[in-house]
Amino acid sequence: MSTEQGTNKSEVLQSLRWSEDYLSLLDQRLLPEETVYLRLTTPAEVWEAIRELKVRGAPAIGIAAAYGVVLGILGFQGNVEQLAEKVVSHAEYLATSRPTAVNLFWALDRMKARAQSFAEAGLTAEEIVQALLEEAKQIHAEDEQTNRLIGEHALTLFSDGMGVLTHCNAGGLATAKYGTALAPFYLALEQGIQLKVFADETRPVLQGARLTAFELYQAGVDVTLITDSMAGHVMSKGWVQAVIVGTDRVAANGDVANKIGTYSVAVLAKAHNIPFYVACPLSTIDLSTPTGADIPIEERHPDEIALGFGKRTAPLGVSIYNPAFDITPNELVTAIITEKGIVKGPYAEKLKQLFK
Amino acid sequence: MSTEQGTNKSEVLQSLRWSEDYLSLLDQRLLPEETVYLRLTTPAEVWEAIRELKVRGAPAIGIAAAYGVVLGILGFQGNVEQLAEKVVSHAEYLATSRPTAVNLFWALDRMKARAQSFAEAGLTAEEIVQALLEEAKQIHAEDEQTNRLIGEHALTLFSDGMGVLTHCNAGGLATAKYGTALAPFYLALEQGIQLKVFADETRPVLQGARLTAFELYQAGVDVTLITDSMAGHVMSKGWVQAVIVGTDRVAANGDVANKIGTYSVAVLAKAHNIPFYVACPLSTIDLSTPTGADIPIEERHPDEIALGFGKRTAPLGVSIYNPAFDITPNELVTAIITEKGIVKGPYAEKLKQLFK
Repeated sequence: MSTEQGTNKSEVLQSLRWSEDYLSLLDQRLLPEETVYLRLTTPAEVWEAIRELKVRGAPAIGIAAAYGVVLGILGFQGNVEQLAEKVVSHAEYLATSRPTAVNLFWALDRMKARAQSFAEAGLTAEEIVQALLEEAKQIHAEDEQTNRLIGEHALTLFSDGMGVLTHCNAGGLATAKYGTALAPFYLALEQGIQLKVFADETRPVLQGARLTAFELYQAGVDVTLITDSMAGHVMSKGWVQAVIVGTDRVAANGDVANKIGTYSVAVLAKAHNIPFYVACPLSTIDLSTPTGADIPIEERHPDEIALGFGKRTAPLGVSIYNPAFDITPNELVTAIITEKGIVKGPYAEKLKQLFK
Repeated sequence: MSTEQGTNKSEVLQSLRWSEDYLSLLDQRLLPEETVYLRLTTPAEVWEAIRELKVRGAPAIGIAAAYGVVLGILGFQGNVEQLAEKVVSHAEYLATSRPTAVNLFWALDRMKARAQSFAEAGLTAEEIVQALLEEAKQIHAEDEQTNRLIGEHALTLFSDGMGVLTHCNAGGLATAKYGTALAPFYLALEQGIQLKVFADETRPVLQGARLTAFELYQAGVDVTLITDSMAGHVMSKGWVQAVIVGTDRVAANGDVANKIGTYSVAVLAKAHNIPFYVACPLSTIDLSTPTGADIPIEERHPDEIALGFGKRTAPLGVSIYNPAFDITPNELVTAIITEKGIVKGPYAEKLKQLFK
C-alpha cells in the first residue's frame, strides 16, 4: 500500500477509483486536514481500510469490497475450480471487516454468485477474473448512476439563486460519486445553476463539517458551514428555500430515520414554510418496517460528546444522552426523491408502487 | 497568587468568594477538567484574572473588580486624601481589564463614589477601607439576592418530576451565585423538588457542556448533557415540560437576544407546546432598544467552529458563518422572569411597568 498526494480544487471528490491494477481509496479518517489516496493492492488492505473506517458509507464500502475480491485474483494462475474457491474465501474474509453494513454483504454475495455463473457458463479462469473486474466496476457504476438520477430529480425542485440547507453527509464520500442529498449540488454546478448551500456541522461526529463542507468546497460548490444551533437563525433570515437530507432507512409509511438533529431541522423548516426533502435510493426504503417507531435508535458512546476531539469538554461522570439517529415523521417530509422520481405524501401507497 | 484544590461534590459552585484578606476565584478556563480556586491578593492579579477570562459573566466580573479595589487598599497607611487617590487609581486600572463589560464599570464607579462619600462623611482611612470591603460584599450579596429572587419566581412555574431544558450558561459561574436561568434548579435542590435538567452543549464554545453541565453536576442536580441537535428529539420523546434560558438583552417589546441556538430551541418548544421562559435581572431589560431588530448581532471568528477543539474539523478556506447570538421574537416567549416577578406577553407595557 502506498499513498498519493491530494486532489486539485474544483474536482468532484471520489471516495474510490479503480486504476489499472489497484484500488485508489481516499482515506476519510484524515479529512479534512489531508487528502490522501491510498493505493490498495490486496484484499487484506481493503479489509483493513473498511475496518478502520478509511472508507465509510454503505455504498462505498460495498464497492470497495467488490474490488477487494478482484485484487485477490488478479494474475491468478490455476484452474476454474481453484479460482472459484479463492473468490469465496476472499469474499468471506472481506465480509468480516464490518458486521452491520448491509451493502457489504450484498456486494460480496453478488461477486460470489457471478463467479459461479461465469464458471458454469464455461469461461476460462482468466476470462472470469476479467469478468469479475467488470462486475465490480458495474456495481460501482450502478451506484453512481443511481445517485445521478436522484440528483437530476432533486434538481428539478431547486432553481437558480436558492439557498439549500443540509444536515450530516449524504455525499460523494459515502457513495461511488455525487451522493444522494448532495447529488443535486454537483449537478447544479455542472449545469451552471447557482445554489447557496448551508451545511450543519452535525455534532457529535461532525460529518457535516469534516465531510460535507469538505467535499462540496473541493468541488467548487458555494457552501457555508454553520453549527447545528444556527439552522433556525439562518432560516429566520430568509436565506434557506429548501432543506435536503439523506436517510438511513425510510419506513413503509414514509417516516424517516436519519442522523440525530434531522428531526429538529424538519420542525424548523416547517415553522418557516420551507420544504423538507429526503433523498435516497430505493434500497433504503424498507417496506417491512411499518413506521418510524419500529426503527431501533442506536445509542452511542458518551465520549463522542464528552471527548469528541481529543479534549474533554464535559465534566467526568455527568449523564450524557447520545442517540445516533432520530425519526422525522412523514407529515414533516415534503417529498422523498429516489432514482425513480419524486414521491410526495401520503406515502404508504406510493412507496409500495415504487417497487412494482 | 496561589491555588487551592477543588470543591467537594454536591456543593453549589461559586465563581468567587471573599476570605479574610484575599479573593478566592474559580479559574473557569480550566473547567471542566480542573476545579482550581486562585488566591488573589492584589489588584494586578484581579486585572489579569478578568483579562484572561479566568472569571467571566458580567455580574461576576463586576464583583471581582470591586474586591480588586479593596485588595489594593487593605492595610493602607496614610491619610484619607491619599486613600481616595489610591481607590481612584486602582479603579481606573481595573476598568482597563476588559473593554465592554458594563457591570465592570458600574461596580468600579460605585466603589469610587462610595469612597468619596465616606471621606466626606468624615470617616478615618481605616474606617473607609473597612466600609469599602463591606460595599464590595454588598455588591456581591445583592447579585446573589437578585438571582435567588429570580430563582424563587421561576420555581413556581416548575413542579416535581418535570424535565426542563436549558441552553448555554446562565448559571452561578457567571454571577455571584445561582445564576439566572439555573437559579430555580439550585432552589429546587434545596427544597427537595426533583427536576430533570437537559443541558444543550451549546456550540461553538460549549458553555452548556463545560459550564452548565459542570456546575449543576457539581451541585448534585440531575442533569443530562445533549448536543444542540438533540433538543428536538428529546422534546418529541415527551421528556421536556419547560425550557428556561438567560439573556444578554431584552428589547422593550420583549424580543430576546441570547446565545446562538436559543431561537431554534424556542421554535422547537412551540412546536411541542412546551413553555419557553427567559430569566434575567431588570438590568438586562433595555427599554431604549425598541425591538430585537435593533440589537446588533456580533459575528465571531470562524475558528471557533473550525478549530473549536484544538483540532481542525472543517476544511481550510471554507466559508463559515458564526453569529454569537440570535433573536427570539416575543411571541415565542411564554414569560420573562425577573427579581420583581413573572411577566407574560404582550410585553411592551408590562416591561415598562417593572421600572416604575
